[in-house]
Amino acid sequence: FSLNLAADCNAVLKALQPIFQEQGMTETVHNWEDHGYLVTYIKKNGSFANLRIHPHGLVLVDLQSYNDDMKGREEVDQLLNKVEERMKELIHGNIKRVKRLPAILRGGVIDRYWPTADGRLVEYDIDEVVYDEDSPFQNIKILHSKQFGNILILSGDVNLAESDLAYTQAIMGSGKEDYTGKEVLILGGGDGGILYEIVKLKPKMVTMVASNIDQMVIDGCKKHMRKTCGDVLDNLKGECYQVLIEDCIPVLKRYAKEGRMFDYVINDLTAVPISTSPEEDSTWEFLRLILDLSMKVLKQDGKYFTQ
Amino acid sequence: FSLNLAADCNAVLKALQPIFQEQGMTETVHNWEDHGYLVTYIKKNGSFANLRIHPHGLVLVDLQSYNDDMKGREEVDQLLNKVEERMKELIHGNIKRVKRLPAILRGGVIDRYWPTADGRLVEYDIDEVVYDEDSPFQNIKILHSKQFGNILILSGDVNLAESDLAYTQAIMGSGKEDYTGKEVLILGGGDGGILYEIVKLKPKMVTMVASNIDQMVIDGCKKHMRKTCGDVLDNLKGECYQVLIEDCIPVLKRYAKEGRMFDYVINDLTAVPISTSPEEDSTWEFLRLILDLSMKVLKQDGKYFTQ
Repeated sequence: FSLNLAADCNAVLKALQPIFQEQGMTETVHNWEDHGYLVTYIKKNGSFANLRIHPHGLVLVDLQSYNDDMKGREEVDQLLNKVEERMKELIHGNIKRVKRLPAILRGGVIDRYWPTADGRLVEYDIDEVVYDEDSPFQNIKILHSKQFGNILILSGDVNLAESDLAYTQAIMGSGKEDYTGKEVLILGGGDGGILYEIVKLKPKMVTMVASNIDQMVIDGCKKHMRKTCGDVLDNLKGECYQVLIEDCIPVLKRYAKEGRMFDYVINDLTAVPISTSPEEDSTWEFLRLILDLSMKVLKQDGKYFTQ
Repeated sequence: FSLNLAADCNAVLKALQPIFQEQGMTETVHNWEDHGYLVTYIKKNGSFANLRIHPHGLVLVDLQSYNDDMKGREEVDQLLNKVEERMKELIHGNIKRVKRLPAILRGGVIDRYWPTADGRLVEYDIDEVVYDEDSPFQNIKILHSKQFGNILILSGDVNLAESDLAYTQAIMGSGKEDYTGKEVLILGGGDGGILYEIVKLKPKMVTMVASNIDQMVIDGCKKHMRKTCGDVLDNLKGECYQVLIEDCIPVLKRYAKEGRMFDYVINDLTAVPISTSPEEDSTWEFLRLILDLSMKVLKQDGKYFTQ
């Protein structure tokens, strides 16, 4: 509860006390004087609640309980409804915001929380751990979501779900490019999504260069991300494609030296590179090197796509 | 911490105690015997920690503090690092999972948490409240996200962001339809996204029917969702489109009676309808009525798109 005014800490405590006591909870009060109250309510079954009253007008209620079945959830909702009612009676028109967040589930077999790279908390409707392996480079997970299909997660970072065709389409130029008869180079792309989509479009030859870092990603995806990669990773060679398991930098240097040119270079390397090559000093150095080498193997009217 | 074995509650408590005491925190221990321990650590500055030790092998640490500046965050990280180290020393190879979640921010001016319709917790990088109004039907918010642009939120339910062109493209048939010279009927779509995208494609006439429920949505979007709707909501009439502010059911009945036919009907009404019409008994009844009426105004080779 965010209030429009300073909180009478003692009045809030007195008003909410009976609600917790009715639940058979026993109370422990800590009074900071200048920082308000922390009241801990403890129930016999191992549940507890924290009521934190800040004098400037912020009242926080946390409930924690174990093995929260539907009955347990209803009880929590009822308790919070009562708290909300009582607060509205007491503060009456001076509550700026009431916000109730979904319960955070911890300790289950399946972890539903996969924060974004920028540190935002995001919960997924994961119902199955499909693949979970450690390579020498990273942890590779494939988790099933009812909504998104199988999701590839590399060392905790959500990479791609089977539902993310839009990502693959975007990095291919949003349907505006004609790949028929073209020479295409894919850097990274271990999930096979780009390769699978381009091969459908009758290119002359697609070369995908995935480093040995990606080997276990490929192994996991070819089994469990079939909506993304189809059968294209089952073999490392097809009629109009080949997959090289090599670091892309030496490959690019070799192609540049040989004068091998491409109509499209699609850089699908991870945003923050993992590298086995000692050459680069920093992320930016590495990105610049990839870009420079890519330009060297790109035809005059070629196109370079990346994230 | 999820452990592979039963926790020695007392040993965990004893191992972690010094870490909190070093922070100048005072300890209160509650021992349930059969449900393990709750230890509350309280700091003079108003911060506190809960350490919940479940005997079957789940150890939960919650920290709560006010006005969490960067220095505060670093302190939290350091504390949690120490807890993690100590736990690893103590449990040694029998920790199944360690998971640290991003801090949940409460009481700020801007609310970053907008759970999905299926109750999953999702945090957005909101940095500005752009629009926040109550209509007689719902609360209408437009919040700015660095990542997604302005986001339309109706009564807490995230509807559409300026970055969600993919949604509009999908409900229009994923770029596979030719709208040139066609008669199109849009039901709902108060954000103007579909109307804006179709008008670009030189249709004969697009009629959008938005009920008075949507009036304030239209008002908000035409000001603050310009990447979605362009200038198409500035006037209710253009060269090849019109917007009717009417309940769609009587409009559909009228068109059916008049024999007015469309090449496309695009139903963009909210998934769970808000209705001012007394006609329907239930959500399904309403959805069926809309579908039946839509079929009546659709040409033999016409197409119906919806979510």
